[in-house]
Amino acid sequence: MPTVYVTRTVHFNAAHRLHNPEKSDEWNRRVFGKCNNPNWHGHNYTLEVTVAGEPDPETGYVIDLGKLRDLIEERILSKVDHANLNLEVDFLQGIIPSTENLVVAFWNELEPALEGGARLHSIRLRETEHNVAEYRGE
Amino acid sequence: MPTVYVTRTVHFNAAHRLHNPEKSDEWNRRVFGKCNNPNWHGHNYTLEVTVAGEPDPETGYVIDLGKLRDLIEERILSKVDHANLNLEVDFLQGIIPSTENLVVAFWNELEPALEGGARLHSIRLRETEHNVAEYRGE
Amino acid sequence: MPTVYVTRTVHFNAAHRLHNPEKSDEWNRRVFGKCNNPNWHGHNYTLEVTVAGEPDPETGYVIDLGKLRDLIEERILSKVDHANLNLEVDFLQGIIPSTENLVVAFWNELEPALEGGARLHSIRLRETEHNVAEYRGE
Amino acid sequence: MPTVYVTRTVHFNAAHRLHNPEKSDEWNRRVFGKCNNPNWHGHNYTLEVTVAGEPDPETGYVIDLGKLRDLIEERILSKVDHANLNLEVDFLQGIIPSTENLVVAFWNELEPALEGGARLHSIRLRETEHNVAEYRGE
Amino acid sequence: MPTVYVTRTVHFNAAHRLHNPEKSDEWNRRVFGKCNNPNWHGHNYTLEVTVAGEPDPETGYVIDLGKLRDLIEERILSKVDHANLNLEVDFLQGIIPSTENLVVAFWNELEPALEGGARLHSIRLRETEHNVAEYRGE
Amino acid sequence: MPTVYVTRTVHFNAAHRLHNPEKSDEWNRRVFGKCNNPNWHGHNYTLEVTVAGEPDPETGYVIDLGKLRDLIEERILSKVDHANLNLEVDFLQGIIPSTENLVVAFWNELEPALEGGARLHSIRLRETEHNVAEYRGE
Repeated sequence: MPTVYVTRTVHFNAAHRLHNPEKSDEWNRRVFGKCNNPNWHGHNYTLEVTVAGEPDPETGYVIDLGKLRDLIEERILSKVDHANLNLEVDFLQGIIPSTENLVVAFWNELEPALEGGARLHSIRLRETEHNVAEYRGE
Repeated sequence: MPTVYVTRTVHFNAAHRLHNPEKSDEWNRRVFGKCNNPNWHGHNYTLEVTVAGEPDPETGYVIDLGKLRDLIEERILSKVDHANLNLEVDFLQGIIPSTENLVVAFWNELEPALEGGARLHSIRLRETEHNVAEYRGE
Repeated sequence: MPTVYVTRTVHFNAAHRLHNPEKSDEWNRRVFGKCNNPNWHGHNYTLEVTVAGEPDPETGYVIDLGKLRDLIEERILSKVDHANLNLEVDFLQGIIPSTENLVVAFWNELEPALEGGARLHSIRLRETEHNVAEYRGE
Repeated sequence: MPTVYVTRTVHFNAAHRLHNPEKSDEWNRRVFGKCNNPNWHGHNYTLEVTVAGEPDPETGYVIDLGKLRDLIEERILSKVDHANLNLEVDFLQGIIPSTENLVVAFWNELEPALEGGARLHSIRLRETEHNVAEYRGE
Repeated sequence: MPTVYVTRTVHFNAAHRLHNPEKSDEWNRRVFGKCNNPNWHGHNYTLEVTVAGEPDPETGYVIDLGKLRDLIEERILSKVDHANLNLEVDFLQGIIPSTENLVVAFWNELEPALEGGARLHSIRLRETEHNVAEYRGE
Repeated sequence: MPTVYVTRTVHFNAAHRLHNPEKSDEWNRRVFGKCNNPNWHGHNYTLEVTVAGEPDPETGYVIDLGKLRDLIEERILSKVDHANLNLEVDFLQGIIPSTENLVVAFWNELEPALEGGARLHSIRLRETEHNVAEYRGE
């Protein structure tokens, strides 16, 4: 039976800053530069969620993308869209919201919630036109 | 010798509906929603065909992309472009034209036709800005 | 007071064919080519609606884009998305669904429904990556 | 002599919120919804600056785009990139940072600084994939 | 009768350098910088040709886009694609191939060749993701 | 510890031709077609460099993308941007500048220069909207 990879792309907008509270302000400014601005900055994030599985013979679906969209909305978008990633998101408490840390955190929220035959394969997050991070659960 | 992955991107436009003829109309409406519209809807599909192989020392090519384009045209585009995917395509008879099923069917058309050292690595099909499916032959 | 142009972009998918029922099948095939396929084809349409007006001093808005989105949804998207443009859309009866005719028809649906200080400036519809039509009400 | 329109596209990231300090919190929440989040949100903004003029016979340039880029950097990007548009930008003090108000404010910063034969024609700012505002100085 | 603007987008790749042969090499290096490289550089150009007119009641077309494509191919693309814009294009002899000069030269090639009711409205040429020039015949 | 893949995207413009100097002009014209034009052509290349590693607990970074950008600038962009890939690039001497050969050559320049815990995972180069090549070091 063939394994097909299906990707759903969604968007959200958020504020954040890169800041390690266990370090001095001077350290943070030196390491993170303008990304450390205490007054925040923000991004239009593009999130690609890829699941892998065998197409269901009755539907041709690896997963019902409407249900995947609802799951992404419930577990991630409802919490991060138009939000402050440092202050307001329960599952990001204590995490520096770099793109790298965000993809791992999003994986940890989505992976246990996937039901049926499809498994989570990749979380890919575009922060700007120049920067993307991806996590594959390994 | 290095293995390089080369991708050719092409476009086609087609009509389709998601419908399982072995199920009732009510089942189809419930499962597929507006994608089941008996009057059809359609998409601008973007198809990415990736082949893998070693660059030929005489040409620097893994594959002559002009020949790959002609092969994609002959085996796939000439049949699906401006066509109805449920009614008119010989190699899609009996297949629900979900994006998942399409990438597997396209693989089966292209893979045996590739000659020379390059092998088919991936078929990736974008149905909308939100949905993509990919098949890697496994 | 400055005039600012605000554009809202939305997407829909639809089936259509180019066909003039007052002409012979042979005429239609010759003039429209594969766009005349009696089994339909389809597109992912991108619709850009531009309104012009002065920003409201209390809100900074020319128009509440949420209300504009709802208006576009009610008047246009709810009728054309996942639909057959030749068969199913009340305001397209008797109209050949070329991109040119669609932008004029969409203008006629939206323009009378706009309220407040903003006026409709442009309807722009992308049918494929190569083709766009725009109407400015003149 | 022909008039040619030349556009330079740049990017910046910023935090903001939509908030009218002369109104109640309840009014702000009702009018601006989640865009009023007191903890801010943010965007990847795309800014298109269009100047118009006759190409110089010696260079073929309407304007030296390197000089235009430096001017945009000095007058706008150095102030808004990785910044908080409500708190930190001198020329935005007292202005609700809606996309509409931003394009007018950017025009007022750039227009007096343009020298030589080229004149500012348009400021276009994309806030998200769905929303754009443009100002043409009238 | 409504006026509709129809745009056809095409692509070509070419080599060029910015160089004014009536000036010294030193002048050229100072004015054009690395764009003056005597060994050339090149671009993927995106060309948008916009024509304006009334939709034909029999076809819904302002212009048959297939015929417009063929005209652009014959008059422009067959000469500039995979070519050297300084050395090989008859209608660019004596012209510094800046984006500004190219749009005017392309207009002069296409405008006299358009037949029927449609008139040329705009030539828009994207040289890089940051730079675009447009000419409207005035 | 999770492995995250981080991609930095950059752009450059260059001239090139496909030509094997060990073969006859007739062979080159037949094999490479218009890509063999002795007067050159060129492209806007988009280069995606992906590195893999574990996010640093102190920064949340797999790699400081500013340092990766500087490394790409020093090793690759400073040599290929606005250059002639056949004539001017030291590390491309004797290499036919096909997209396939370029990604392998770029890998060989970047891979030894990466320091710290991150390792080079992929070099991906887009030559046109239709053609991409990728190398993963194997």
